[in-house]
Amino acid sequence: MGSVREDLIAILKTHEGSWISGERLSESLSVSRAAVWKHMSRLKDEGWGIETAPGKGYLLTRSSDPLLVREISEGLKGTVFGEAGRIVLVRETGSTNTAARDLAFRGYPEGTVVLAEGQEAGKGRKGRTWFSPAGKGIYLSLLLRPPMNPGELPRIAVLAAVAAAESLSEFSPLPLSIKWPNDLILGDRKIGGILLESHAELDLVDFVIVGMGVNTAVGVADFPPELRGRATSFLLSTGKSPSRAPLIRAFLSRFDLHYRTVLSGDFSSVRDRWTALSGLAGKRIAAGGPGPPVRGVAMGLDDSGILVLRQDSGACIRVYSGDLFE
Amino acid sequence: MGSVREDLIAILKTHEGSWISGERLSESLSVSRAAVWKHMSRLKDEGWGIETAPGKGYLLTRSSDPLLVREISEGLKGTVFGEAGRIVLVRETGSTNTAARDLAFRGYPEGTVVLAEGQEAGKGRKGRTWFSPAGKGIYLSLLLRPPMNPGELPRIAVLAAVAAAESLSEFSPLPLSIKWPNDLILGDRKIGGILLESHAELDLVDFVIVGMGVNTAVGVADFPPELRGRATSFLLSTGKSPSRAPLIRAFLSRFDLHYRTVLSGDFSSVRDRWTALSGLAGKRIAAGGPGPPVRGVAMGLDDSGILVLRQDSGACIRVYSGDLFE
Repeated sequence: MGSVREDLIAILKTHEGSWISGERLSESLSVSRAAVWKHMSRLKDEGWGIETAPGKGYLLTRSSDPLLVREISEGLKGTVFGEAGRIVLVRETGSTNTAARDLAFRGYPEGTVVLAEGQEAGKGRKGRTWFSPAGKGIYLSLLLRPPMNPGELPRIAVLAAVAAAESLSEFSPLPLSIKWPNDLILGDRKIGGILLESHAELDLVDFVIVGMGVNTAVGVADFPPELRGRATSFLLSTGKSPSRAPLIRAFLSRFDLHYRTVLSGDFSSVRDRWTALSGLAGKRIAAGGPGPPVRGVAMGLDDSGILVLRQDSGACIRVYSGDLFE
Repeated sequence: MGSVREDLIAILKTHEGSWISGERLSESLSVSRAAVWKHMSRLKDEGWGIETAPGKGYLLTRSSDPLLVREISEGLKGTVFGEAGRIVLVRETGSTNTAARDLAFRGYPEGTVVLAEGQEAGKGRKGRTWFSPAGKGIYLSLLLRPPMNPGELPRIAVLAAVAAAESLSEFSPLPLSIKWPNDLILGDRKIGGILLESHAELDLVDFVIVGMGVNTAVGVADFPPELRGRATSFLLSTGKSPSRAPLIRAFLSRFDLHYRTVLSGDFSSVRDRWTALSGLAGKRIAAGGPGPPVRGVAMGLDDSGILVLRQDSGACIRVYSGDLFE
């Protein structure tokens, strides 16, 4: 893989929508024209929109939006992700969460980011899958090692959802909202989700993986039938898919900001943002967990980031997560 | 490895302390005398007390106490460990917790047990090591998949400590006690410990590994100098090391009993046992966690299994774990 490939993509992106000759690429990259051709074939195999024509050379079509590590790492200096300097980009993986978990067990540091163009077995909550067509979404996992006890982990899920909704809203004419516990909503449809996975001792978190999946350029025909009425993408809801790199950068910056705030001991400002973005407080809900569903009025998040529900009896209980029924 | 080895060990154990000829072993096992010799050499290499003498054959010295899966699985029918039928015995491993974690990610069921004769990198809390000389201790990890949310996991640590203290007490003239959060104490010295490791989504436990290390036949010269004043073994404190298989069986049966009780919704009976075995309630302690130590009077465990501490200000806080200072 290495730098020739990254350099090639960088040049193609600068010339997006216009032709560039094989000769010129060969000179710029200091490799043979045969090597250029080989890299191009591989990119085409990977599904990127590259056209070739005799006498003209190569063209990256405007609809292509390949990810580049250097584009993402730009502007992340000073953040936990910039400091780690470990942005791992893979073309296709089983799931970025599983890849990040493997890196975690191998000792990769806090701030490691795993990105994939597509996922073969993208993960949703509770063993569900996350539809992850290559090039048409953001599939990303963050590796964090917060000095927390496991009971405080829901705070990380809360700040991740806030960072996601805020950063995605910057790229959308319509604001995004959060549906408890982990859905990102555009209009009344799901455009993304957050998935937390943690490994801990009794009293100490070893690592947390924060996974995010967002549909950017997924078309209506791409979605499997069972998702069509419920899911959306930037392309479907706004008519246009933003370039993914700036979106990812915005998310990482927001995440870093809120993460530092929470680690400094101030959870309440993030919680206030969550409350505004979720609009859940005061609503009557039924939350279904592993046991029978519990009904009541959502009171808001407690200090650990867990939802408090007031049942009809007046008793307040904490609900970790579940599926909203009302 | 397989059954010839297990059969050979079983025959040796029946004849423990007396000679048995290579010819007779070869007949009983339906293998050549050369094969018997090969297996014996390997067992000797592994450090088992096997003597050979021309014309006499082989002898397993009484001080040997090799583990046999079939001896451990006896009497576990109807328990979660008997139902899984997955008792994995390895001679030497890095750590049984890590081995059990790998099996968990590979989909092994609840009730899987990993046992080792010795550990090269036995784990203690917070990255500490657990001294694990081959054949002289119990090194065991249980794989569980309780339908719990992560906040309830401390209950598993509590029931594990109770099961350990109760079962070990059966084999000791002196009773064992629990030192919060996870030490097993004989007299005033540490004879064992419990280590919990969990993997979870936000709201659902994927799996828990309960590791237990107990010093059975560790002699005073075996211990590294820094442990000598603080650690003990059955051999050191009672003059005699019990055979390990019945001890392991007793622990697994007790664990199963308390595990079912807790999963049925009754945590209070296990908590009462813990309170009696720990003698912590009402004592003044300083608990050191990741942050600065907190001081106060131990009030007992809350409904999640977390210790409640009443500070001098009168405020009660929950302490996940830590090191006792007073």
